[in-house]
Amino acid sequence: MIPSQMIVFLVIFLQSYISLAYDPDPVNDYCIPRTEFSSIFLSCKNTSLVTVDDFIYSGIKDPGNFKHTGFSSIPVSSTVFPGLNTLGMSFVRADFDVDGVNVPHFHPRATETAFVLEGKIYSGFVDSGNRVFAKVLEKGEVMVFPKGLVHFQMNVGDSPATILGSFNSQNPGLVKIPSAVFGTGIKEELLMKAFGLNDKEIAKLRKKFVPQ
Amino acid sequence: MIPSQMIVFLVIFLQSYISLAYDPDPVNDYCIPRTEFSSIFLSCKNTSLVTVDDFIYSGIKDPGNFKHTGFSSIPVSSTVFPGLNTLGMSFVRADFDVDGVNVPHFHPRATETAFVLEGKIYSGFVDSGNRVFAKVLEKGEVMVFPKGLVHFQMNVGDSPATILGSFNSQNPGLVKIPSAVFGTGIKEELLMKAFGLNDKEIAKLRKKFVPQ
Amino acid sequence: MIPSQMIVFLVIFLQSYISLAYDPDPVNDYCIPRTEFSSIFLSCKNTSLVTVDDFIYSGIKDPGNFKHTGFSSIPVSSTVFPGLNTLGMSFVRADFDVDGVNVPHFHPRATETAFVLEGKIYSGFVDSGNRVFAKVLEKGEVMVFPKGLVHFQMNVGDSPATILGSFNSQNPGLVKIPSAVFGTGIKEELLMKAFGLNDKEIAKLRKKFVPQ
Amino acid sequence: MIPSQMIVFLVIFLQSYISLAYDPDPVNDYCIPRTEFSSIFLSCKNTSLVTVDDFIYSGIKDPGNFKHTGFSSIPVSSTVFPGLNTLGMSFVRADFDVDGVNVPHFHPRATETAFVLEGKIYSGFVDSGNRVFAKVLEKGEVMVFPKGLVHFQMNVGDSPATILGSFNSQNPGLVKIPSAVFGTGIKEELLMKAFGLNDKEIAKLRKKFVPQ
Amino acid sequence: MIPSQMIVFLVIFLQSYISLAYDPDPVNDYCIPRTEFSSIFLSCKNTSLVTVDDFIYSGIKDPGNFKHTGFSSIPVSSTVFPGLNTLGMSFVRADFDVDGVNVPHFHPRATETAFVLEGKIYSGFVDSGNRVFAKVLEKGEVMVFPKGLVHFQMNVGDSPATILGSFNSQNPGLVKIPSAVFGTGIKEELLMKAFGLNDKEIAKLRKKFVPQ
Amino acid sequence: MIPSQMIVFLVIFLQSYISLAYDPDPVNDYCIPRTEFSSIFLSCKNTSLVTVDDFIYSGIKDPGNFKHTGFSSIPVSSTVFPGLNTLGMSFVRADFDVDGVNVPHFHPRATETAFVLEGKIYSGFVDSGNRVFAKVLEKGEVMVFPKGLVHFQMNVGDSPATILGSFNSQNPGLVKIPSAVFGTGIKEELLMKAFGLNDKEIAKLRKKFVPQ
Repeated sequence: MIPSQMIVFLVIFLQSYISLAYDPDPVNDYCIPRTEFSSIFLSCKNTSLVTVDDFIYSGIKDPGNFKHTGFSSIPVSSTVFPGLNTLGMSFVRADFDVDGVNVPHFHPRATETAFVLEGKIYSGFVDSGNRVFAKVLEKGEVMVFPKGLVHFQMNVGDSPATILGSFNSQNPGLVKIPSAVFGTGIKEELLMKAFGLNDKEIAKLRKKFVPQ
Repeated sequence: MIPSQMIVFLVIFLQSYISLAYDPDPVNDYCIPRTEFSSIFLSCKNTSLVTVDDFIYSGIKDPGNFKHTGFSSIPVSSTVFPGLNTLGMSFVRADFDVDGVNVPHFHPRATETAFVLEGKIYSGFVDSGNRVFAKVLEKGEVMVFPKGLVHFQMNVGDSPATILGSFNSQNPGLVKIPSAVFGTGIKEELLMKAFGLNDKEIAKLRKKFVPQ
Repeated sequence: MIPSQMIVFLVIFLQSYISLAYDPDPVNDYCIPRTEFSSIFLSCKNTSLVTVDDFIYSGIKDPGNFKHTGFSSIPVSSTVFPGLNTLGMSFVRADFDVDGVNVPHFHPRATETAFVLEGKIYSGFVDSGNRVFAKVLEKGEVMVFPKGLVHFQMNVGDSPATILGSFNSQNPGLVKIPSAVFGTGIKEELLMKAFGLNDKEIAKLRKKFVPQ
Repeated sequence: MIPSQMIVFLVIFLQSYISLAYDPDPVNDYCIPRTEFSSIFLSCKNTSLVTVDDFIYSGIKDPGNFKHTGFSSIPVSSTVFPGLNTLGMSFVRADFDVDGVNVPHFHPRATETAFVLEGKIYSGFVDSGNRVFAKVLEKGEVMVFPKGLVHFQMNVGDSPATILGSFNSQNPGLVKIPSAVFGTGIKEELLMKAFGLNDKEIAKLRKKFVPQ
Repeated sequence: MIPSQMIVFLVIFLQSYISLAYDPDPVNDYCIPRTEFSSIFLSCKNTSLVTVDDFIYSGIKDPGNFKHTGFSSIPVSSTVFPGLNTLGMSFVRADFDVDGVNVPHFHPRATETAFVLEGKIYSGFVDSGNRVFAKVLEKGEVMVFPKGLVHFQMNVGDSPATILGSFNSQNPGLVKIPSAVFGTGIKEELLMKAFGLNDKEIAKLRKKFVPQ
Repeated sequence: MIPSQMIVFLVIFLQSYISLAYDPDPVNDYCIPRTEFSSIFLSCKNTSLVTVDDFIYSGIKDPGNFKHTGFSSIPVSSTVFPGLNTLGMSFVRADFDVDGVNVPHFHPRATETAFVLEGKIYSGFVDSGNRVFAKVLEKGEVMVFPKGLVHFQMNVGDSPATILGSFNSQNPGLVKIPSAVFGTGIKEELLMKAFGLNDKEIAKLRKKFVPQ
């Protein structure tokens, strides 16, 4: 009978994940995804239902909890801040305990400008010719990490440090090198050859990064 | 029960406004939005249902009624001419009575080329260095208004005038400076400071532009 | 009653054809369209349902059947290989019998790089200044056909030949000149004047290219 | 000696043709190419040297001479109207004598909106599924030709007709099918097979379209 | 003689202003413009001459001087921070004295995300339907201003305030409404009609905004 | 004196590296960079000097020498095949000896489609959620690696294998993870914390990847 088919229909859709928006050149002022079904259909709220709060994000006033690992980041893409949808930007707050490290990573879909809100941060990137550009940044300084290049940061001051990063994509993506390479099921033999490590060394690395 | 939930489901969607198409680089020849649900889902008509009339617009053969204000414009975006959907273009017909004025305005998402169909039009734009480029255009002349810059026009001839504007976006947007600034609820104190006007002067401007 | 309306609702949508994705700058890693409803809604499979097979295409291992016309092509756009969706690429395998011809054609939405897998292929394109760039390519050579320009190929060797073409659009489109011009209902008088042919000559060409 | 080498240096550059600007997303308000060296370097005039006349085009007030062939077009790309440079738009004026024909052609890099300034024009395009969308347009009507698709026009009224076309590229390109296919040096055998014509028929067509 | 012609050649070029880079999709990791000739040619420094300092900006550690007007902004586009060239991003630091105002303005080529570094800021924008979205933001809150829309800010706290704005263009442009409209040479009669003001009122506004 | 200054002028420019072309939406049919000065100015050859050979690449007919490391790749970007300039595509030939490995790497500016020309290749990528999609591909199969994601390959057959990769950028870039992370001067302490390795282990890895 139809009604139950409809339930199935809805359930299937609620499982699906919509991801067909694109960064360049919106055709409307904005498009706040409809909350109830935003994961189902590419639909915007009727503009009469949009409020100023749709365009404001208040979730990075305070640092994330970096006590355990010495590092915490709060990425704010269009997924958590729907007001960014179709507007081609997003941002991240990163907090570092003393000696805290943001491991080598890259964003497949965006350039990043990183502004030091507090502290002294060793910060750098590697270009595709394997050249490192790195330096200690102080409060108020800004570094740009070109689109798709590996970059990294470490708090080298003696108090906590904070960075505000901005991206030119509503969903820049994040690939952390250690876990992407050693924390996934890439064939062990391939990793051994790629890194010149033996099976025990690879196993040790895997143990650290494969989620339990 | 399900059926009534379905009604709710449909009603909610009919209220929503779809706006997630983008101007650059279509992936199909064309995409005529389905009329029944175009405000709900990003779906194209089955190509077998598409007809030549989907690609033709006949609504700007005649001028709009410009008797009252001396100016009338008929913007034709993908909203009123669905055949433009995904194709990155739209257009506008603007008619001016003698002395009629198209107030300073800009299109946030497009460059405009304006062709004088009839009459003598004082026409110009302001660049972001606050330099004005303005001149009287005659029938058959074309002026380009760069993307996002403030521009304006006035009929300086002694008979009605008409312009055909074209845009490189299916929905260029339109921000008319007087009403956007004085006809909206921007805090009075901010406007006083921004324009160096006193409260009475601001109130007078507001009265003109705030919709009753 | 509602349930039957719902059926109508679904049926209407199943007839529609979704085509609003765009090539540039995805906002997610990938988006595998949901199989059940991919022709209805722009929705991606839940990532947990995505498998490696979504990213692999095995349908061009063997040549198409080119016995009848001497030419066969297997275009692989996002329509047949959904893993390409939002990723801005697609490809084609073309097989040529001896003397087989790929008629003058163009792709409205992509540049093509064509790699000769086997054989000797006379291959070329015409630029918009009506200049032909053509040459015989051998196995392992690559020719680039700029975006939107007319190009053509012919097997000039004495054994079957094969080409692998790649495109920078998930759906480049294909316009074959002979059938687009003579196999469609363009007014006969216009074609006569355009090609300087008389009515019998046009009729003969039409007979060949208008589908029966 | 150096000075003469410098002359060579300049001469070589004056022969070269600069074409590296791109349509999407300018990074300045405008960029009027420097007249003296615009064919050499990608440089913009100092803004202080830019005048309002750089943004106005007056060359399509009158029809081109269509007496000989019954058709005349004046394409206005950034090459002839430098003010369009980086702004992503251009336009064309086309005049038709009675029965005049704009032969099947396409623009590899743009969508076109065509506005009928005068007369009755049979106008249409062919999609990539070989379907024709054609109709007689009257004064004031607009038809859109999707990016890269073959389109055509013929004056079917009993007085001259005129069209204003707009494009969403500063240089849309133009490929006229008859001359691109038959007026260039494509191998005769390939054309015979592609169009099912014999050598005499191809020779006749070539005679018409190969420039003498 | 040649050498002096060469000097002329160089001088002419040094006057010109290069602006042909585009925001989307770089084709290299980065491109630091050559300092000596960056205003002449679109050339990048040899990568071996690039240093980490090319990617770091230290000029917004301290506020600009906002004593006189109560507001100061330091825009950092690729013009002042060449490391941003081709990377599609830029930023601005804005400082507000108590009651300081950032007048209604817009950026023709970018969306902005504005992060409150310090203070309480009344902040908002107007959409193209003339609806205002405005609210008081506190330290650590972020507001997004969609591409090309008019926005404004005022310090409503009782101590100085600071904002860090980020843009998704290397050169977003800035149009301040009061000076763009009243501080330029737009015909007085047009402004009178557009704003419903008499000649004295317009003259008063002009006096404030036309640079002396 | 001038002439020697001119030499300096030329020498400086010959050192510079031009990289300001962009992938999307060319404004000409093609642009073959001028050979003599292509590294100096963004100029295209006069079209009359362009020949068919500018559009053909013959350098990947044979495998590179993979005897030493078991792997060899020949990337063909617009740098080595200038005909690709402005056309948004490039390609690579990769040859694998038995057990040969293409180490985990990514292309910051492109999606890749990889076609197996010969052999059995274990091939896969990691998405930004750290999920691996990997499988053994056979001759004639194609896998797509989404833009910017880490991917890898290994010959798991018992004879040499070959892959043809295509990219949707004229210069996709290449970042090999092992050498980008361990073969560059990233601060040792940061790497120790990032990978959970001690100083000896990091030193061992560095020894392998830092160029001598």
